[in-house]
Amino acid sequence: MGEFELIRNFFAAAPCAQGGEGVALGIGDDCALLAVPSGEQLAVSTDTLVAGVHFADPCDPFLLGQRSLAVAVSDLAAMGATPVAFTLALTLPTVTADWLQAYARGLSQMAQGCGVALVGGDTTRGPLSLTMTVFGRVPAGQALTRSGARPGDLLCVGGELGNAAGALPLVLGQRAAADVAGPLLAHYWSPQPQLALGQALRGKATAALDISDGLLADCGHIALASNVRLEVERERVPLSDALVAFLGQPGAERAALSGGDDYVLAFTLPSVELPALLADGWPVHVIGRVAQGQGVVLLDRDGRDITPQIRGYQHFQESP
Amino acid sequence: MGEFELIRNFFAAAPCAQGGEGVALGIGDDCALLAVPSGEQLAVSTDTLVAGVHFADPCDPFLLGQRSLAVAVSDLAAMGATPVAFTLALTLPTVTADWLQAYARGLSQMAQGCGVALVGGDTTRGPLSLTMTVFGRVPAGQALTRSGARPGDLLCVGGELGNAAGALPLVLGQRAAADVAGPLLAHYWSPQPQLALGQALRGKATAALDISDGLLADCGHIALASNVRLEVERERVPLSDALVAFLGQPGAERAALSGGDDYVLAFTLPSVELPALLADGWPVHVIGRVAQGQGVVLLDRDGRDITPQIRGYQHFQESP
Repeated sequence: MGEFELIRNFFAAAPCAQGGEGVALGIGDDCALLAVPSGEQLAVSTDTLVAGVHFADPCDPFLLGQRSLAVAVSDLAAMGATPVAFTLALTLPTVTADWLQAYARGLSQMAQGCGVALVGGDTTRGPLSLTMTVFGRVPAGQALTRSGARPGDLLCVGGELGNAAGALPLVLGQRAAADVAGPLLAHYWSPQPQLALGQALRGKATAALDISDGLLADCGHIALASNVRLEVERERVPLSDALVAFLGQPGAERAALSGGDDYVLAFTLPSVELPALLADGWPVHVIGRVAQGQGVVLLDRDGRDITPQIRGYQHFQESP
Repeated sequence: MGEFELIRNFFAAAPCAQGGEGVALGIGDDCALLAVPSGEQLAVSTDTLVAGVHFADPCDPFLLGQRSLAVAVSDLAAMGATPVAFTLALTLPTVTADWLQAYARGLSQMAQGCGVALVGGDTTRGPLSLTMTVFGRVPAGQALTRSGARPGDLLCVGGELGNAAGALPLVLGQRAAADVAGPLLAHYWSPQPQLALGQALRGKATAALDISDGLLADCGHIALASNVRLEVERERVPLSDALVAFLGQPGAERAALSGGDDYVLAFTLPSVELPALLADGWPVHVIGRVAQGQGVVLLDRDGRDITPQIRGYQHFQESP
């Protein structure tokens, strides 16, 4: 048995590969088989992480295991889907038992937290990269897309922004860790896909996505798909105390507006839906509104358009 | 707009990305949405091809486009599934318009032939590799797995074997092309997934897979999953005239038994099913039988076990 077949057996024996609801046939055949309940659709998304591009190399394999799956599952949250399963295409330059075990532990922990089962994949030799394809189910016609925002809707996010971007100088070794950095690093390495929030927004939000490229850039995707203008009020964008302590107020604002890797939901909501969501305790932060027009504008507290000034900053590495 | 966003738009505009039956939402949102008819299941498989490992680098991007999709779709054929869609995770060191256009042409041509729509993916910078995840639908309970072979069944293949392995020395530049090499190279670069055969075998074959690692090695997977012994009769393994002309009889036999990349179906069949399949014109070649026991044995025309001698050859590069 070759070393790559050993790896396949290793993953097939992992806790996260032991089937689950909706998995009719798991790892080990030519295909996995997924059961989709009548009246539901299957949501599918693929993400690739390349060493040296999307994460530092070397890095902690346990944390990489968590992060690589969380990033992919976050797309299911953005559609309001219930996670079912995932496949992993893992390309490795060399086979190291310690590395694999730590990676699989991180992966399994995140898989368990998200309720997804590993149902297949491929393991090959080559420069380190990971491609995850995730599967979720969603009632037909209820998925949250990017294209339904309407003028008058509120623009909302599901939590504090910028934490992961704030951690990037630490991750890249450009800055030494400070006491306040712990929560930022945790957010970078172990983002928590907002699955429950996404499901709660079904039938309520008119558009949604998960913020991966930065708030302003991702709002641009909703604006384009929905053919509307999104107005973001800078003062209302939620910032964590840790981020402000680490970067100062202007740096924290830049991280929250233009940094990436948040994996927090951004969505548009008819205002009539807001009170019930808040009453139920959902983390809904109104940061602006949807208007007629195109594109994204950033407003200061006096309603002045400050978009160009902020957009001029290209402080954080843009992932291709 | 960055160059990788341009690539995404390029693929989103490709003919193969324009939706299709079973695609409720295609490229462009956080997830694609697939509709699975009531009473059917979704078959899923992931394959990675790495430059310099699974294909020569550089190589013809049009041919690579065809091959990369065909290899993945072949897993749907092996399950008896009807293709629906696929995602493409493409990692590229540099962006070259000519390369991308040729690759997309090859991809689209194969996608059209197989009836699959491109519904999503990811494009990243890094060492050249491709990960395809393919989706097909199959009536619940009718998928062809590896685990149902029973003693007494016939062992069959869906066509001539060894052609792609025969082409490998040409692909790797180890041998100059000969007149007879055309069909071999065509088989290597543009394998034709046996989708119709796989669907015809639903409810008839007791086990099936597509031969990717070589006949004997892949028969081992059926033997293990079904807990039976597979007996392969060397004389009955179908060889193409082109392969015998190019490699000679012993070389052709080795390629057919131990070479990989065939993407021809191997399956087990109760003998009662054979006449109707042959009468309907399906390419079913009986090459042996299923017996009680374990493992795979190769028999000569006199029924002598010649397994060790043949297994000793490791003529072709084993892909990890």
